[in-house]
Amino acid sequence: MADFVRVGLIGAGRIGRVHAESLARRVPGARLVAVSDIRREAALEAADLHGVPQAPADYHAILSDPAVDAVVVCTSTDTHARIIEEAAAAGKHIFCEKPIALDLANTDRALAAADRAGVKLQIGFNRRFDANFRRVHDLVAEGKLGMPHLVHIVSRDPGPPPIEYIRVSGGLFLDMAVHDFDMARYLSGSEIDEVYATGGVLVDPAIGAAGDIDTAVVALRFASGALGTIDNSRRAIYGYDQRVEVFGSAGSAIAGNNTPTNTVLLDAAGTHADKPLHFFLERYAEAYAAEVRAFCDCILQDAPPPVTGLDGRAALLAGLAAWQSYREHRPVAVGR
Amino acid sequence: MADFVRVGLIGAGRIGRVHAESLARRVPGARLVAVSDIRREAALEAADLHGVPQAPADYHAILSDPAVDAVVVCTSTDTHARIIEEAAAAGKHIFCEKPIALDLANTDRALAAADRAGVKLQIGFNRRFDANFRRVHDLVAEGKLGMPHLVHIVSRDPGPPPIEYIRVSGGLFLDMAVHDFDMARYLSGSEIDEVYATGGVLVDPAIGAAGDIDTAVVALRFASGALGTIDNSRRAIYGYDQRVEVFGSAGSAIAGNNTPTNTVLLDAAGTHADKPLHFFLERYAEAYAAEVRAFCDCILQDAPPPVTGLDGRAALLAGLAAWQSYREHRPVAVGR
Amino acid sequence: MADFVRVGLIGAGRIGRVHAESLARRVPGARLVAVSDIRREAALEAADLHGVPQAPADYHAILSDPAVDAVVVCTSTDTHARIIEEAAAAGKHIFCEKPIALDLANTDRALAAADRAGVKLQIGFNRRFDANFRRVHDLVAEGKLGMPHLVHIVSRDPGPPPIEYIRVSGGLFLDMAVHDFDMARYLSGSEIDEVYATGGVLVDPAIGAAGDIDTAVVALRFASGALGTIDNSRRAIYGYDQRVEVFGSAGSAIAGNNTPTNTVLLDAAGTHADKPLHFFLERYAEAYAAEVRAFCDCILQDAPPPVTGLDGRAALLAGLAAWQSYREHRPVAVGR
Amino acid sequence: MADFVRVGLIGAGRIGRVHAESLARRVPGARLVAVSDIRREAALEAADLHGVPQAPADYHAILSDPAVDAVVVCTSTDTHARIIEEAAAAGKHIFCEKPIALDLANTDRALAAADRAGVKLQIGFNRRFDANFRRVHDLVAEGKLGMPHLVHIVSRDPGPPPIEYIRVSGGLFLDMAVHDFDMARYLSGSEIDEVYATGGVLVDPAIGAAGDIDTAVVALRFASGALGTIDNSRRAIYGYDQRVEVFGSAGSAIAGNNTPTNTVLLDAAGTHADKPLHFFLERYAEAYAAEVRAFCDCILQDAPPPVTGLDGRAALLAGLAAWQSYREHRPVAVGR
Repeated sequence: MADFVRVGLIGAGRIGRVHAESLARRVPGARLVAVSDIRREAALEAADLHGVPQAPADYHAILSDPAVDAVVVCTSTDTHARIIEEAAAAGKHIFCEKPIALDLANTDRALAAADRAGVKLQIGFNRRFDANFRRVHDLVAEGKLGMPHLVHIVSRDPGPPPIEYIRVSGGLFLDMAVHDFDMARYLSGSEIDEVYATGGVLVDPAIGAAGDIDTAVVALRFASGALGTIDNSRRAIYGYDQRVEVFGSAGSAIAGNNTPTNTVLLDAAGTHADKPLHFFLERYAEAYAAEVRAFCDCILQDAPPPVTGLDGRAALLAGLAAWQSYREHRPVAVGR
Repeated sequence: MADFVRVGLIGAGRIGRVHAESLARRVPGARLVAVSDIRREAALEAADLHGVPQAPADYHAILSDPAVDAVVVCTSTDTHARIIEEAAAAGKHIFCEKPIALDLANTDRALAAADRAGVKLQIGFNRRFDANFRRVHDLVAEGKLGMPHLVHIVSRDPGPPPIEYIRVSGGLFLDMAVHDFDMARYLSGSEIDEVYATGGVLVDPAIGAAGDIDTAVVALRFASGALGTIDNSRRAIYGYDQRVEVFGSAGSAIAGNNTPTNTVLLDAAGTHADKPLHFFLERYAEAYAAEVRAFCDCILQDAPPPVTGLDGRAALLAGLAAWQSYREHRPVAVGR
Repeated sequence: MADFVRVGLIGAGRIGRVHAESLARRVPGARLVAVSDIRREAALEAADLHGVPQAPADYHAILSDPAVDAVVVCTSTDTHARIIEEAAAAGKHIFCEKPIALDLANTDRALAAADRAGVKLQIGFNRRFDANFRRVHDLVAEGKLGMPHLVHIVSRDPGPPPIEYIRVSGGLFLDMAVHDFDMARYLSGSEIDEVYATGGVLVDPAIGAAGDIDTAVVALRFASGALGTIDNSRRAIYGYDQRVEVFGSAGSAIAGNNTPTNTVLLDAAGTHADKPLHFFLERYAEAYAAEVRAFCDCILQDAPPPVTGLDGRAALLAGLAAWQSYREHRPVAVGR
Repeated sequence: MADFVRVGLIGAGRIGRVHAESLARRVPGARLVAVSDIRREAALEAADLHGVPQAPADYHAILSDPAVDAVVVCTSTDTHARIIEEAAAAGKHIFCEKPIALDLANTDRALAAADRAGVKLQIGFNRRFDANFRRVHDLVAEGKLGMPHLVHIVSRDPGPPPIEYIRVSGGLFLDMAVHDFDMARYLSGSEIDEVYATGGVLVDPAIGAAGDIDTAVVALRFASGALGTIDNSRRAIYGYDQRVEVFGSAGSAIAGNNTPTNTVLLDAAGTHADKPLHFFLERYAEAYAAEVRAFCDCILQDAPPPVTGLDGRAALLAGLAAWQSYREHRPVAVGR
């Protein structure tokens, strides 16, 4: 294989454009060779910005192009599983935004397809590539914290997405907390055995009317015996709040938010510092580039992807269990 | 009434000696006039240290002394309720260490006795007088956080107490988390409606053998609709870890640990700072003085005590519900 | 000798009352047996507050009392040297507020008197007893920073003293920076060889009219070869700003301000924390008690005082050199 | 003019490669059209990396190319002034690394040439584009600090450059502190009127043998009446230490170091955090891209460059005055 991966981007919406920028400018091991979007003008615009020769409306043109080694899938969630299956059949390596699907059957079919085709499948759990969280993970993995006993994850958005999005999103536990379930597994180095989820509609009644909740707390039991909590809100007035702590027998590691600057102002009213970076595009800018870099590296070196389809499946199972727990008002074992 | 309160101390163990010091030196509105302890030499030692004239082994000598206005009760938990009843009958105002009792019947009898006698009864929830936590409470009370949505309480000891103590302590949820249940009510300004508790024995198998747990997570639902989590461990290797966060519609307030110094060392290995203050005597030194000061003030000004018997009762009910939740593996409504 | 020191307080003004409180309540090795003040009612008030039997207007009554072991001198600066001489002649150990005098001749006469009499003489450089600064000193002394290369001291008051005080204070370099010169010696473990001082009147023209300056920068050369800077202002709108850094071949130690709480508020406008503690009575509350405790300890153990008359003399010499440097607009060697 | 600037890079050493990367990937308004270096293979390597068509050894080929709008000059300091003159004569806009020259005559000739030619000349004071420092500048400019009274700049390298470099560098005050003199002007919004510089050889005797110093303190007087200090070391064992503070009548703004992560580890030994980012390439990665972006923007919008030749000249004058002050052991007025 060459010393770079020829990548086709499928879906040029918000996150698609982030990956296009990374693939075109920030990942030496990638060449962005095609961009598709059902809105042709979105594909053309991204292609034009980065000097990409092909910009079909139909992603099948990418899948059938032998000059494409891999695809990055950034379409709407309901299309992920199908595109994975098709891309796998076409022999393309696949980076797919989370979640693979909102149900287990489709997820499993996609995983099986990738497996059968022998292509790499990496899921877009970008937070694993955040330097702060990665450091916590590494401290756990290196044994610096001893045996993990407690995990705490704070994950709050600056504001809720549009109600139309919420309706098809799978709801808070599948759309938002799914990242936190993955983070819980990633940080603790253990599977989640059981969840107890409770929540409410405190931010916006319209979210409740759409059948979702906007504020939640989840208690976790890990296979290792460790315990954990997740704390979610759809609206933190001060910005994107993404913090984690892992507490173990030998110490505790705490990762906080990043800020635009570290400049502090002392005046007659107090001591003032920046708010956290506003939202995921700012907070995870480096992480988005790093995950795509890692994807290309795993292809070039024929290594396993750092985040697998099974990771996506496990987070989905935790999210499904959380919804069941919330609805049945009891702790629920997470499927395997 | 005079401009000071004549106080008798009942119980001159570890926490009793802290209160003796406060009453003798740090509370202008108090005169420490008697110290009793079933171990007479402990009473004598404390009395001698502070120039206190009386040091009976039997606290009834204090209760029957008309020159005593109030008592501070620092005996073992199993005696609290009875002493409250006796002190109330003797017309003394009462400051009693938490918990009043490990069961509701004794608690209610003690509360009724104080009520009947018309004496003040303050419970030793010292953390309410910690400057960091008080600031969080005040920000909530002043509306600076809007409507509280989420509460997170970290409460970890540097090491477990002796197994003999654990056996009679009421266990983690009544001995340790009871402070956190009170903190949850104090910070949120709302009653706890329901708890879900999960836990394990990760620190020391002997704690499990004694029928207790040493690590726990509790999910809370408040009457206001807010949610919360408590995270407990009997052993944080880096010291006493006492932090809280209240997140609301208008902002979030976060209180951390105090440290011996704020001096930072940068060297070839990294940036290094102090560990948290070692344990409760260090962390809450000022809070212990402040709560006794507040107790004397409420007597002198004939105002309600800042922490009442009902506060003690509510925290007990949450702790009892937590044990039931833990045992029955389901969320449990907190009694009223 | 007994296991406590019988102390007479001379001068019951602002700082005298702080020491009275310490001696009466916070220093187990002390008995406050007399308080004097030229304003008799100030003496009586302090004596009454702490149950002290004697409260003469004339401090000679204290000096001639054989039941007094030591004196704490908190009178106005112009009386310090004379009282030290008299107290030494009376065989009393002496704790004297800084500075001993504003000139070298009086300072040297006072030191000689204490020397001749064989009494302890401790100078009130309270900042040496601040936990943050002491940690920096200890890191230097333990070699954790290697050889010190650079010292930086920030020392800013929340507001200037009254103009009448400024007129007799010795001016910024003797009244205010003298603490910083002592801190520079204490932290670096080296004598100051040379100073270059520059300053201005930026806070209040009335300070300039009184012949003083209100803002200054001093560059230091130490005998060890290390260099340093002091940065002074008479008015920091956000409160008392007292920070130090020592940078050495093996690392750097940085000590900051203390705050009433460590609670942080995140809201729509940013992240907000407390201002520093307002002024010296708050910031150095513990240090004031600790220095008097150390004074009594050195008497009881017949050890050298932790801050000597020579320390006071050295800081004075640095301050005098700073004034000369400022006036002659050139670096000036510090006398020995 | 087009909507991008065609840029030729002259000098493909360490900092040249940083600018090449920025021009090729991070500055939408730039097209990197040529790279030259006297070591042809360096030019070829950079050109190859970024797909740049021309890579001459002789930069005159760039100057004579009408398809080049602007040059970025990253050659050795002794060539800067001459290249500026030649580039100006060729009508190219010029971004030149600091310093323009180590003497005033060459600097002035270069400035005059750019002036005469009417081309933009921007000097590479990258720190002005650091987000932390820029925030301090903006707070001053917006009046949030009132009138600036004191400036403090810490600027320490992780280790000294090679002795051969030091020999031709102009020494600490022209090579290293020149950035700090610029920062002092930038932050305070005022010219430096006078400097007093003191220093020593504490890091490496070889630096002294080369006629330079490695540790220094500079006291500053600004035209506005403000005062300041700069604190320099060639070796901070914990990494690149770049902090500033501006203190004014209405508050103080403090900017600190950046770190790879903000993850904190608490263990039995203490609380541990990252060291600062290692050196300038890490700390100022974003600033380097931002300054080149600003350069291209000022060309495209025909606006004055954000850092001018006069800024380079002023910093040089301060550095020359610092050397004179150091040698003559007295404060020295900064030339205009």
